[in-house]
Amino acid sequence: MTPGPTNVSSEVMHAMLHPIINHRSPAFAAAMEGLMIKAKNIFQTNGEVVVLTSSGTGAVEASITNILRDGDSVLVTAFGEFGERLAEQIQDVGATVIRIESEYGNTPTIDDVRRAFEQNENLKALYVVSNETSTGASIRWLKEAGDLASNAGAFFVVDAISNFGGDSMPVDEYKIDICCAGSQKCLASPPGLSMLSISEKARKFIVDNPPKRHYLNLQRYFKYAEKNETPFTPALPLYFALDRSLEIILAEGIDRVIERHAICANAFYSGLGEMGLNMFAKPEVRSNTVIAMNYPEGIDDKEFRARLDANYGVILAGGFGRYLGKLFRIGSMGTVGRYHVIVTLTAIGMTLKKMGFEANLDDALSLSSSILSKLSTSAR
Amino acid sequence: MTPGPTNVSSEVMHAMLHPIINHRSPAFAAAMEGLMIKAKNIFQTNGEVVVLTSSGTGAVEASITNILRDGDSVLVTAFGEFGERLAEQIQDVGATVIRIESEYGNTPTIDDVRRAFEQNENLKALYVVSNETSTGASIRWLKEAGDLASNAGAFFVVDAISNFGGDSMPVDEYKIDICCAGSQKCLASPPGLSMLSISEKARKFIVDNPPKRHYLNLQRYFKYAEKNETPFTPALPLYFALDRSLEIILAEGIDRVIERHAICANAFYSGLGEMGLNMFAKPEVRSNTVIAMNYPEGIDDKEFRARLDANYGVILAGGFGRYLGKLFRIGSMGTVGRYHVIVTLTAIGMTLKKMGFEANLDDALSLSSSILSKLSTSAR
Repeated sequence: MTPGPTNVSSEVMHAMLHPIINHRSPAFAAAMEGLMIKAKNIFQTNGEVVVLTSSGTGAVEASITNILRDGDSVLVTAFGEFGERLAEQIQDVGATVIRIESEYGNTPTIDDVRRAFEQNENLKALYVVSNETSTGASIRWLKEAGDLASNAGAFFVVDAISNFGGDSMPVDEYKIDICCAGSQKCLASPPGLSMLSISEKARKFIVDNPPKRHYLNLQRYFKYAEKNETPFTPALPLYFALDRSLEIILAEGIDRVIERHAICANAFYSGLGEMGLNMFAKPEVRSNTVIAMNYPEGIDDKEFRARLDANYGVILAGGFGRYLGKLFRIGSMGTVGRYHVIVTLTAIGMTLKKMGFEANLDDALSLSSSILSKLSTSAR
Repeated sequence: MTPGPTNVSSEVMHAMLHPIINHRSPAFAAAMEGLMIKAKNIFQTNGEVVVLTSSGTGAVEASITNILRDGDSVLVTAFGEFGERLAEQIQDVGATVIRIESEYGNTPTIDDVRRAFEQNENLKALYVVSNETSTGASIRWLKEAGDLASNAGAFFVVDAISNFGGDSMPVDEYKIDICCAGSQKCLASPPGLSMLSISEKARKFIVDNPPKRHYLNLQRYFKYAEKNETPFTPALPLYFALDRSLEIILAEGIDRVIERHAICANAFYSGLGEMGLNMFAKPEVRSNTVIAMNYPEGIDDKEFRARLDANYGVILAGGFGRYLGKLFRIGSMGTVGRYHVIVTLTAIGMTLKKMGFEANLDDALSLSSSILSKLSTSAR
């Protein structure tokens, strides 16, 4: 139950056993074409989608090195460790970062973004981390931000690694020029692939201004995409797995998958709240995919998580950076359903009791169960 | 039978089904430690080994961007498409490339390299493609080149993507500062991972001069390697597969694996020669892993390879770049053994006959079989 890599179904795991094929063959082109149709469907885009053999960091770096150049000015939201990492990556290409900050656990508001656009000229792009894995806080104003960026003639880039597939992300409607996703989060596929959606505007810029890079050079991917190939040898087994996981998502229905993430997150927050725990994020920006909770007084992080693992087989993540030891995080992603929520809540409640904190587990389970009853039958 | 991705054994494929684990856990650290021991054993190094979730191009780019800077002067061997690609990648970081060329099908000599070191000063590095996948020509003087580079105070970097694991490559003995390998060639693992060995000298340089990159920044990998982790989410299933394939190589014995590659290549060249075909490479530099053969007059590339695939299930690669349609290439790599050689030779001979070329198949099979009888029992 960590915020990625998440659980992968047996069906998706076994898709990796597809025989190794030549990546310069009609068989691969057919597989790639099928994967692209599914991926564009999930991004809800008529633009391009590129699959990289890399972690999410590779996708984010590609979104930076293909769009930004030395001397560009860029707005960047910074409200957690991943926003900081993003700002650092942007500075490394020589661009000037104008931070739109908020305290950790909260997010900047759309008014903050509007002010930043008003106070700065010639902005090349707005970069937003849509879901802060380190704090469990999530952006609610992507659509409005897309309008602001578009009106300012700036690119709109979203690092959606930890909530793509768990929150609604229609990239064309939101005017997102590049959206970065990872295979191992809400898409419930093994780690090793990342995906980027790319708008026509961004595609044109990249084709006209190809970066002096090779592996993360998107222009090369566009060129090979014309024949449904990749410029470099792809991680074939992971492609077959991703294809199967996207197929499963489309069969369930994107809206239902997103609703399932929202219901499970609600069940987690409500149950944990009933037990007497406080969430780290402000309630109005709480994430639907990463549940970050403060430890009650006196509960030791390492001992708590070791007990959960040893006694219940439930693995949670700890705090990140400055919040190490202060909070724990649950990845409520991908295959998450009634089973995962109930087992995790039970493990947390029982362990807290063993460690001397009087968690109200019965009421918590009762409340969460009633929320989970809203799940469609298949997800129960 | 293409020069990668090569055949992967069922055993290695099934290793991918290992449950997805947290990459920040003792379980992953233990797996990583085991993989590193095996990898260092195969590289025959006391230095570092880094595994990247990327194709071989990613590893080669990492060897360039972590070592070279704007203004550096670099010797680069250029005797095929991959050497040209390498030179281009090096120029893209602003370095000056001094080419050591030969005609395609041949390789530069060690005297060419010696002269280049004598005629140029302040060389930052010597870059060598050890095996040209596009021409089937292979370098035989890596050890001597290591001495020349070392004496000149230059880094020695080898792109061994298509023969690492198939030819002897003791990187410490050869004074190779960075050696790049791919999972999907002679190591007989699925595509998606690459590996680099890094000498103490190169490691120190990178730590003291970290590049302004993220995903391919080796300094980050060194830092996380101290706790047997990777800086970014690794492609877990591919790690388990690579671990299993390296285990199988070590069980067979590195020397025996290399001998097997040499015997199979010899059986291919001898059998195809007996059929009346000519190899593309000069005999004295012929590759032990990529067999490139000229087409006889009148044999159409596309038709030939389509027939091989349709009638025998044997897939070969065509010519590359300027040799498109002029030659075919066999990947004699990884799991290659008696079965693969005999089936491939039979398919080629029968198809050539059907297409009007009187291949001497009986004598070819007889000659190849006698060569293959030198294989150790397990590889027959």
